[in-house]
Amino acid sequence: MNVGFLGLGAMGSGMALNLLKAGHKVIAWNRSPEKAQALVAEGATAAQTPQEAFQADAIITMLADDDTIASVVLAGDLLETAKADAVHIVMATISVGFSKELERLHAARGLAYVAAPVMGRPDVATGGDLNILVAGKPEHIQKVQPLLDAMGKATWPVGDAPHKANVVKLGMNFLLASAIESMSEAIALARRNDVPAETVVEVLTNTLFAAPAYKVYGSVILDGTFKPGFKLPLGLKDIRLVLAAGEQSGAPMPFASLLRDNFIDALAHGDGDKDWAAISKVALRRAGLT
Amino acid sequence: MNVGFLGLGAMGSGMALNLLKAGHKVIAWNRSPEKAQALVAEGATAAQTPQEAFQADAIITMLADDDTIASVVLAGDLLETAKADAVHIVMATISVGFSKELERLHAARGLAYVAAPVMGRPDVATGGDLNILVAGKPEHIQKVQPLLDAMGKATWPVGDAPHKANVVKLGMNFLLASAIESMSEAIALARRNDVPAETVVEVLTNTLFAAPAYKVYGSVILDGTFKPGFKLPLGLKDIRLVLAAGEQSGAPMPFASLLRDNFIDALAHGDGDKDWAAISKVALRRAGLT
Amino acid sequence: MNVGFLGLGAMGSGMALNLLKAGHKVIAWNRSPEKAQALVAEGATAAQTPQEAFQADAIITMLADDDTIASVVLAGDLLETAKADAVHIVMATISVGFSKELERLHAARGLAYVAAPVMGRPDVATGGDLNILVAGKPEHIQKVQPLLDAMGKATWPVGDAPHKANVVKLGMNFLLASAIESMSEAIALARRNDVPAETVVEVLTNTLFAAPAYKVYGSVILDGTFKPGFKLPLGLKDIRLVLAAGEQSGAPMPFASLLRDNFIDALAHGDGDKDWAAISKVALRRAGLT
Amino acid sequence: MNVGFLGLGAMGSGMALNLLKAGHKVIAWNRSPEKAQALVAEGATAAQTPQEAFQADAIITMLADDDTIASVVLAGDLLETAKADAVHIVMATISVGFSKELERLHAARGLAYVAAPVMGRPDVATGGDLNILVAGKPEHIQKVQPLLDAMGKATWPVGDAPHKANVVKLGMNFLLASAIESMSEAIALARRNDVPAETVVEVLTNTLFAAPAYKVYGSVILDGTFKPGFKLPLGLKDIRLVLAAGEQSGAPMPFASLLRDNFIDALAHGDGDKDWAAISKVALRRAGLT
Repeated sequence: MNVGFLGLGAMGSGMALNLLKAGHKVIAWNRSPEKAQALVAEGATAAQTPQEAFQADAIITMLADDDTIASVVLAGDLLETAKADAVHIVMATISVGFSKELERLHAARGLAYVAAPVMGRPDVATGGDLNILVAGKPEHIQKVQPLLDAMGKATWPVGDAPHKANVVKLGMNFLLASAIESMSEAIALARRNDVPAETVVEVLTNTLFAAPAYKVYGSVILDGTFKPGFKLPLGLKDIRLVLAAGEQSGAPMPFASLLRDNFIDALAHGDGDKDWAAISKVALRRAGLT
Repeated sequence: MNVGFLGLGAMGSGMALNLLKAGHKVIAWNRSPEKAQALVAEGATAAQTPQEAFQADAIITMLADDDTIASVVLAGDLLETAKADAVHIVMATISVGFSKELERLHAARGLAYVAAPVMGRPDVATGGDLNILVAGKPEHIQKVQPLLDAMGKATWPVGDAPHKANVVKLGMNFLLASAIESMSEAIALARRNDVPAETVVEVLTNTLFAAPAYKVYGSVILDGTFKPGFKLPLGLKDIRLVLAAGEQSGAPMPFASLLRDNFIDALAHGDGDKDWAAISKVALRRAGLT
Repeated sequence: MNVGFLGLGAMGSGMALNLLKAGHKVIAWNRSPEKAQALVAEGATAAQTPQEAFQADAIITMLADDDTIASVVLAGDLLETAKADAVHIVMATISVGFSKELERLHAARGLAYVAAPVMGRPDVATGGDLNILVAGKPEHIQKVQPLLDAMGKATWPVGDAPHKANVVKLGMNFLLASAIESMSEAIALARRNDVPAETVVEVLTNTLFAAPAYKVYGSVILDGTFKPGFKLPLGLKDIRLVLAAGEQSGAPMPFASLLRDNFIDALAHGDGDKDWAAISKVALRRAGLT
Repeated sequence: MNVGFLGLGAMGSGMALNLLKAGHKVIAWNRSPEKAQALVAEGATAAQTPQEAFQADAIITMLADDDTIASVVLAGDLLETAKADAVHIVMATISVGFSKELERLHAARGLAYVAAPVMGRPDVATGGDLNILVAGKPEHIQKVQPLLDAMGKATWPVGDAPHKANVVKLGMNFLLASAIESMSEAIALARRNDVPAETVVEVLTNTLFAAPAYKVYGSVILDGTFKPGFKLPLGLKDIRLVLAAGEQSGAPMPFASLLRDNFIDALAHGDGDKDWAAISKVALRRAGLT
């Protein structure tokens, strides 16, 4: 398939590469064009403008956030320039409110809109092993399923209205942050009682919590350098989107509120360049540990 | 081995049965003696008094809580009556403070004390598939390892001082309650956005959270009847012990504080006879859902 | 003085009236023009457009929120049309971020900007008894001091940069909501122990908490009808602004986070038309009380 | 009246002195007897044993906490030794549960029991300006009213059952801690926006929060040395009693839960010798301020 791809960050470049490997034709655009060069070397075409990328049969948007999509796609009137039968797949983690606005704008334009946010860090994207949440009209999803299959190991359909995929994606990120926080509090309790963090993580990841979330972040916490896979300010952004979605739909989320405070605490202590799992340090610091 | 077993509740009776199956000699005691009958039919001896059970080579205490152990074991001066080379294994979930007191009392008496709290619900106990946390002097643990092997599928040593096993056990129960709460908030958010709870649970338990904690409690939440495996007031008791351990050792645990409030909310709404996962209803109720 | 007044809601109309009474000339504008009629009867001139009101020597903006000011004042390019030596006084409760943007826009235009948010409910505004927080250049404040004196019983200068008045104002609203919540929790505790709410409120408002905040809201809570003086969704808006200001400047505010959850809970239970003190019902409902 | 007085700490010694000044006969007892000397110099009799003090017509217990009362009064069987028509006034801040136990024990013994916890710091006790909460049978209270009048400036009757006075007292301490925390968060927000703490405290204590609670603790926070009037671990103890009372009666108190975490945080950072208002430092520290 002929695919326009906007947004070649740590996640997007791996995803686009997997499309190429699966035999799709990729017209790639990135705000800083040098990032497209690596892809061109693998067979992609570099789009000079986002409009060009929007001429494809399927357009994948993997831009940073609501504002970036608004400034590139909406301000550029790109929805107007797409082919009538194209499908626009927004794979970034965006707000539920903005996803609903995109539903209205695509419907007004008669353009197919699929939301397909992904779960996985950059190495998982490169490996083609993402879990992809997807929502949209079944016939639209069916059309782009080969693309999703090329980028992920599994696709999880969650409904007809695209914004539902964003709801579930935000819910998953909330669960991840909650897992990081609860592990951190358990570790603070353990260390204050002379039980090493390693013991706690070993026990939990081999018994009731033997799941990727706890294994990945348990090991990130034990490592302690918090080299960023997903930066802390982006984590705060996602928790802010979780809370906004809760507020707009009427769901109090006290764990999420508490997480937000801890992200702010971590930023106020200079951890803005670290992985979001560095909120772990807040629980330890509050217990007088380092 | 010759084993005295005190406490034949839903957990204890399954554990004692597995000791019998493994060829150990069990002298069983329970406050209400009729519960010992089923075990006697399987080959156990019924102890008429707790003292009798305390004459064995190894004594396993699976009584309800600190107070019960204090009234049966301490008030009855049982530590004084045990053989000099016996090992006392306390497998109940007790407070860290009480476990430290037991350390002092056993040391004063010269009696071996091993803490071995278990992870798993009654069906897991019956199946002999418990995960057993253990702490105590290595030579004491070694002596009773065959008993632990008969009752559990794995033993997790966490240190020399018995109370450390209680710290880790409370940490694990805290993590379980946190998992229940975070899933519940994610479900409240989803349902307020017309995404069914089933979708959320299916996605999470098949991807990043594919672990027993989420599978078991995800299914308990979806089922919605909250038939008790572990009763809500016992869950509150454990969270109270978590908070007490945090307070005594200097670790603030804000997620645990919030869980405590939700347990009280659930009890105030009449769910005291339900499984502790019924705190799930608090997140939904606060979102105006039922 | 010649005063343009934009925004004649429950607060603004009382404030404008007091300007008239003090002998100032008022050119009043409101989106729905009928609200200006009562003022005209008292001697004000009705502005046909917001531009007209912006021709005065001092312009007071008492519009609802950031968005309304942006759409009326900024989208209408009104800052460009004001006299060079006019002073623009923004008395609404706006976000700290927007107040900073207004600082930049006024500076670029060379127009004097004073932020003067007020404390007091509508009856206090009508009585001319508001407490007025004020920030801006001293020479600008001095110029409009007679106007502030006409509307309030006291002016509290809090700094040179206008946005600081908004910070303090949001802090005060946060303190009010915290007082409401803490009284409500104390009342829930009391009632669960058969001590009437009246007893609690009587004791506290006559001893350590003998202050307007507790007297006013203690009586609102006891009354229990929550007829709106300040509507619940506006309270949530202010707490949202508090949290945003905390996030942007690096201050975790856990009490504010908890308040936000309670506002959402109250809205999810249908109290959107009530006074913001109706968050009081959340603490009672969670305790199983009505 | 002939008054036995047990407990001559910072509060008790001032209260006993005011009884003497009002012409009552005081038989004073304290665990460390040197504290009774100052009172003897003012006309009191030193009791050699607590039993002696319990022979008076009215006995006032101002001991530290539940445990101290249990070990001095209950373990010493003092209730048995009191005169049949004596009134026992417990003025310490004790748990609601223990107060109920005292109700049962006094009823069994046929001894009059009045709970009369006080509000005020040591200087207020010395000045005779305490606010005294009181609960008990009206005829019992009437009998000891002259004593209460000598020690306090006002008596607040809150019910027939003594434990209700303890409920209200704990509620008041909870409100004080909440006021400290909310001021601290507002100050953190202000300081992060370059508004001095002094400005915030000045505005609030002169407007909506012009009450002793905010004036006293606002000034303690501004002073910043936190010289102890009421020590931080005692503050934590009271919040623990608040939470226990909430749990036992079915009232979730999320503000109190959060306060408890902050007390533990403060203790883990070495502030155990400071005034309880030093929890103020937690909000600042979490915002990266000192």
